[in-house]
Amino acid sequence: MDNKVSMEEVVNVAKRRAFIYAGSEIYGGLANAWDYGPYGVLLKNNVKQAWWQDMVMKRGDIVGLDSAILMNPKVWEASGHIAEFTDPLVDCKGCKQRFRADHVEGNDCPNCGGELTEARSFNLMFKTHAGPVDDESNVVYLRPETAQGIFVDFKNILDTTRNKLPFGVAQIGKSFRNEITPGNFTFRTREFEQFEIEYFVKDALSAKKAFDEWVKARFDWYKDLGIYPDNLRLREHEKTELAHYAVAATDVEYNFPFGFSELEGIANRGNYDLQQHWDHSGVDPRYFDEETKTKILPHVIEPSGGVDRAVLAFLVDAYKIEKTEEGERTVLKFHPRLAPIKAAIFPLVKKDQLVMEAKKLFSQLKERWFVEYDESGTVGRRYRRQDEIGTPYCITVDFGSLEDKMVTIRDRDTMQQERVLMNDVINFLEERIK
Amino acid sequence: MDNKVSMEEVVNVAKRRAFIYAGSEIYGGLANAWDYGPYGVLLKNNVKQAWWQDMVMKRGDIVGLDSAILMNPKVWEASGHIAEFTDPLVDCKGCKQRFRADHVEGNDCPNCGGELTEARSFNLMFKTHAGPVDDESNVVYLRPETAQGIFVDFKNILDTTRNKLPFGVAQIGKSFRNEITPGNFTFRTREFEQFEIEYFVKDALSAKKAFDEWVKARFDWYKDLGIYPDNLRLREHEKTELAHYAVAATDVEYNFPFGFSELEGIANRGNYDLQQHWDHSGVDPRYFDEETKTKILPHVIEPSGGVDRAVLAFLVDAYKIEKTEEGERTVLKFHPRLAPIKAAIFPLVKKDQLVMEAKKLFSQLKERWFVEYDESGTVGRRYRRQDEIGTPYCITVDFGSLEDKMVTIRDRDTMQQERVLMNDVINFLEERIK
Repeated sequence: MDNKVSMEEVVNVAKRRAFIYAGSEIYGGLANAWDYGPYGVLLKNNVKQAWWQDMVMKRGDIVGLDSAILMNPKVWEASGHIAEFTDPLVDCKGCKQRFRADHVEGNDCPNCGGELTEARSFNLMFKTHAGPVDDESNVVYLRPETAQGIFVDFKNILDTTRNKLPFGVAQIGKSFRNEITPGNFTFRTREFEQFEIEYFVKDALSAKKAFDEWVKARFDWYKDLGIYPDNLRLREHEKTELAHYAVAATDVEYNFPFGFSELEGIANRGNYDLQQHWDHSGVDPRYFDEETKTKILPHVIEPSGGVDRAVLAFLVDAYKIEKTEEGERTVLKFHPRLAPIKAAIFPLVKKDQLVMEAKKLFSQLKERWFVEYDESGTVGRRYRRQDEIGTPYCITVDFGSLEDKMVTIRDRDTMQQERVLMNDVINFLEERIK
Repeated sequence: MDNKVSMEEVVNVAKRRAFIYAGSEIYGGLANAWDYGPYGVLLKNNVKQAWWQDMVMKRGDIVGLDSAILMNPKVWEASGHIAEFTDPLVDCKGCKQRFRADHVEGNDCPNCGGELTEARSFNLMFKTHAGPVDDESNVVYLRPETAQGIFVDFKNILDTTRNKLPFGVAQIGKSFRNEITPGNFTFRTREFEQFEIEYFVKDALSAKKAFDEWVKARFDWYKDLGIYPDNLRLREHEKTELAHYAVAATDVEYNFPFGFSELEGIANRGNYDLQQHWDHSGVDPRYFDEETKTKILPHVIEPSGGVDRAVLAFLVDAYKIEKTEEGERTVLKFHPRLAPIKAAIFPLVKKDQLVMEAKKLFSQLKERWFVEYDESGTVGRRYRRQDEIGTPYCITVDFGSLEDKMVTIRDRDTMQQERVLMNDVINFLEERIK
């Protein structure tokens, strides 16, 4: 892409336009924690809602779940996280800085040249204590992934709903990983949000087919929501990269300013997870298949995405600086479903009748969508403000409107204007935003 | 209420109908942690969305925020949580059980009669360590409330948006309190979700007026979403209950099976919080008032509600057992906006043409709403299933539909049926659900 931006520029733009602030900024921040500001929270909500609508509501073969962040520690024994969810860590004997062993080459410290210690395993789960005593019996972890909530509740979902295989369970929620080196803005943070699906099928053969379908479905989802296709690619994991139980895994990667990096991973996990929880809990999670009258331990495909990474990709991809007849403009070309503000309503000038009509329209529209009313400055300046936060439609009430009951709607991307009957504005927007 | 249910019945119904499961149940649970199942997550999402739409989208004087759970520990020094967010705790010298000192009378243990220790302060914030070293320099807390994120980001919001006082900042998110005695199902849990607003005004006089408006607005919100008014009441805090900085506080209480208890608190906090953060961070949070050309430290009204409590209240209030002509039915009479499933579509019997038409209608409706298709059992039985999860409309395609292109829509509450043109079903639902 010719106008590819630097991460620094993205961070600045995100702050200046109330999308993303440094967390606890007035206290000097907190190691790569970030807050979503007034426009950022709307963008993030829209990304989550688009996923929820497309993956759960519209499909009909997936149900939702919202499991707790704090789980019984036995969950993490069964899943292998207590034993294996570690990074190799080295300390510099000189400056005492810590590094991931797989991120440094040789035995010298990248910072001061001092000698590095042997690598030791560092578990990435945040540990805390529930209840008034800080001892081992009270240890709980902040979940490092939402997925295990789905496996642990699988039996309950089977027993209390009427789902037939194949079906999926979807969840959106916060997870926590005590990364040694968080970084790249919201790309790798210790606290992050995930959207994960566990799609259960009858056997290994169905899993193979479902895996291919999910890789395509998830790639297409990002593309259909406006990511430029050349900025997306699929990366199949090498056999050596796979966990011992995994059959296959493919990442959807986005071309971030720091290079192609993982947005989402789709994995064929066999029946490993349900088997592990069966072994550790003693609760049989098998599905009774009416057709064959047998009990089945389902196989599972896991499309697991990062919400913050998706938001970052949509933000980076939308950011454009364009030459126009009036000079340069910066614009966020979000898909209308993702745009924080769907429309802005302006009176052409600050005259009573125009203001009244514009406010009336604003009142109608804000019952359905996030919209803004703006009467300050020239219309050109108001367009620029809305371009900068990615509002797809600007609607101006002018003197002609008082006669013909029509308004001018200006399209963010084409900058073309068209006259639309006031009474048709809701339909106009509905068709274009859905 | 004549059919007031017991908590035990609510817990059972919530599980059986896939609303709420015990967290980590297959491992024996985890001290009062709960998961929202397939219908529960839809109900909870609808409650959060109704709040977000009514309090943020439709008002126009409130913006959103989504700040991180992990904040710089200096935030909790400034807010007073490190020093003062404690419960008095006593231990029994006999059986070693722990109690809140204010929940036991006398000096003997309620469990074994043993002697109790002196009360000591127990801080309710969960403590963990960020980064690879578990020492004091790395301590971080899980936030005990979302509100402080709003105060900490207030200056950023002022600088990057064009809000004029009075305006509010709203946030939905998880908080954590290490309660000594969690209980009453989802009413008091260690992990919970909040919806909080900080509504900033110019001075103490405006704060007094805004406080009254917010008490009314929040009471009405629950009422308008269908809570039976007699089950709601306002409780004004006594002067002795108020924090030293608080000017006034009123709770909205709901008549839970265990008695009237807090759903939401509305507090007039003066300008205490912004002042504290100004003192501790050195960052001046004042607002420049264009009218008077002076800098103002705003006062704030805080309507702070618990999402899980709201969900529990809507669930308890909706639950009815009714005598009908065909016998008894159990029904969840949710407001249509809150109902997890908006409509169910049935073919009268399992004949190809009816199935095809019903599935066609289902396909259209699931583009907009969570709906279900059901062809199994008698229509009466299918009505009962939908009543039990609170679906407001059941739509049946019968042989007549093939001729007159009309379907029968049955209303959950009145059980009345009416014939509606298939092409009008979307409008019919849209009018009733919004």
